[in-house]
Amino acid sequence: MERVLSGMRPTGRLHLGHFFGVLKIWLELQEKYECFFFIADWHALTTEYESPFNISNYSKELFLDWLAVGISPEKSTIFLQSAVKEHAELYLLLGMITPTSWLERNPTYKDMIKNLQNKDIATYGFLGYPVLQAADILIYKANKVPVGVDQVPHLELTREIARRFNYLYGIEFFPEPQALLSSVPKVPGIDGRKMSKSYGNAIMLSDSPDEVVKKVRAYVTDIERPRKSDPGDPENRCVAFNLIKLVFSDEEVRDIIEGCKKAQLGCVECKKKLALKVIDVLTPFWERRKEVENTDWKSLLEKGITKAKEVAEETLKEVRKILNFPY
Amino acid sequence: MERVLSGMRPTGRLHLGHFFGVLKIWLELQEKYECFFFIADWHALTTEYESPFNISNYSKELFLDWLAVGISPEKSTIFLQSAVKEHAELYLLLGMITPTSWLERNPTYKDMIKNLQNKDIATYGFLGYPVLQAADILIYKANKVPVGVDQVPHLELTREIARRFNYLYGIEFFPEPQALLSSVPKVPGIDGRKMSKSYGNAIMLSDSPDEVVKKVRAYVTDIERPRKSDPGDPENRCVAFNLIKLVFSDEEVRDIIEGCKKAQLGCVECKKKLALKVIDVLTPFWERRKEVENTDWKSLLEKGITKAKEVAEETLKEVRKILNFPY
Repeated sequence: MERVLSGMRPTGRLHLGHFFGVLKIWLELQEKYECFFFIADWHALTTEYESPFNISNYSKELFLDWLAVGISPEKSTIFLQSAVKEHAELYLLLGMITPTSWLERNPTYKDMIKNLQNKDIATYGFLGYPVLQAADILIYKANKVPVGVDQVPHLELTREIARRFNYLYGIEFFPEPQALLSSVPKVPGIDGRKMSKSYGNAIMLSDSPDEVVKKVRAYVTDIERPRKSDPGDPENRCVAFNLIKLVFSDEEVRDIIEGCKKAQLGCVECKKKLALKVIDVLTPFWERRKEVENTDWKSLLEKGITKAKEVAEETLKEVRKILNFPY
Repeated sequence: MERVLSGMRPTGRLHLGHFFGVLKIWLELQEKYECFFFIADWHALTTEYESPFNISNYSKELFLDWLAVGISPEKSTIFLQSAVKEHAELYLLLGMITPTSWLERNPTYKDMIKNLQNKDIATYGFLGYPVLQAADILIYKANKVPVGVDQVPHLELTREIARRFNYLYGIEFFPEPQALLSSVPKVPGIDGRKMSKSYGNAIMLSDSPDEVVKKVRAYVTDIERPRKSDPGDPENRCVAFNLIKLVFSDEEVRDIIEGCKKAQLGCVECKKKLALKVIDVLTPFWERRKEVENTDWKSLLEKGITKAKEVAEETLKEVRKILNFPY
């Protein structure tokens, strides 16, 4: 079975963007592949090193959220990056063969330096983010990595590092991981921008039903339809419609489009329906979330860590042998 | 007792430069301090990554040479860097707080990029050399590091990284290591340049007595003294004299100076004496070198690794606690 690796940085609580953009996809992947899902807490340090004290708590919340969504410790290997020390060793070794020029030309690096001007992230660790990412992926010899279009250059760097290792040491050792491009659209926030906690436009998975209602009510709809009696154009002008498409069935979506275009369904009423549907979607999550908090989740995480360590250690043993390093 | 850390890169066999410039100093240090001496095999990768296959053999030779010189596994902790994986973890963590600008302004970095133009060392690992070095030192909370004058900027970087860690996390955790400036002059090679294997001007510790005689005979002496009957000026014009000062007693050195200045001691005869003296100095080393090869040196190395790991793991436990990382 082909192997998939994916991870998330524990830098805050999850929202609907993660739910539809990542976790729903993971649920499908874990049925088809041997999946390794990891909490990238060392990666979180690249932006949070000045105050890393909450990372551990976010890691725990992330793990519980994953379990509640249905990511299964039976089907998949779920683990914490910093608990598998082999990642650090491979990061060090791969760093030795990675030209700094490859890292400096990385578009994400340039963008983030520009965008995060309030944080001082021009650090060695941040520059080497793609090297650590390559170690994360290659240590499990993952064949596939689910990525958004904007992350393709990152994965390409992993592929280049794998190729360079194989070339330098004359051995087809690391497979070049392929991108699993996700077809899920960006989940819109209340204001129409990509949903993001830092934009303050997100419906959090930890929101109460009341908060969901309030936030959905605030969604921007068709601004050229001030009155219900004006016919709308949801597919082209309504932000909320992008969320509608994600939660309702195709048939329900067709009805909503029709109601809007024929000026029968008003925005207020429509968003009320939407809020209820979102609550509907989240209710099983909320229920399971409470359940998993009371399970022995720590031992589930430990189990994943143990499994991950076995595979990682096996790869490292081979790498050390290739380099002729005895330990 | 104050703690000292020092290491050598296993990139080739040792020569008299190492013997007088490093190992003789270590012998003194191990009587006064709690010493950690390590074989920096991960560091060797920064320049040897394209062909790392001999590093492991050089590591073994280095360890045997150290033992033969008298570096004592009883008095000191002698270990192999790559066997103490905690170095890689601390390297990763310290990299997160190290601005790349600190690394780019490092004069050794600029010099080496220029000097090693036949090797492609503009890698991430090479740029981070001082970060790994900081990890090596700080993981043992070393108080003192013996350095040559040219390495002072490197150590200053370690001190800066220690300060930054302590400042960011509001705790006086890492001591700032002090430089133990060595007073030993550079050991001259046959041609007068600093002794270095890559210059082809070195007397190797593994040379035979015949080779020593041949190489000492080739030393440049006072070029303004073509004949024995010309009075010489050894202190100002003779390359061999810098080696003479290292191996003979003060009284013997005085006699040699006198013989040279009074045109009584010719260069050929003088270098014959010098060769014999060098052989004299090396003979106990050669004898012990054969002995240690036949001891269970592997278990001596294992013992050192175990001791180093204990201290390193203790430091890492504290570091993880400071960052609030559970694993």
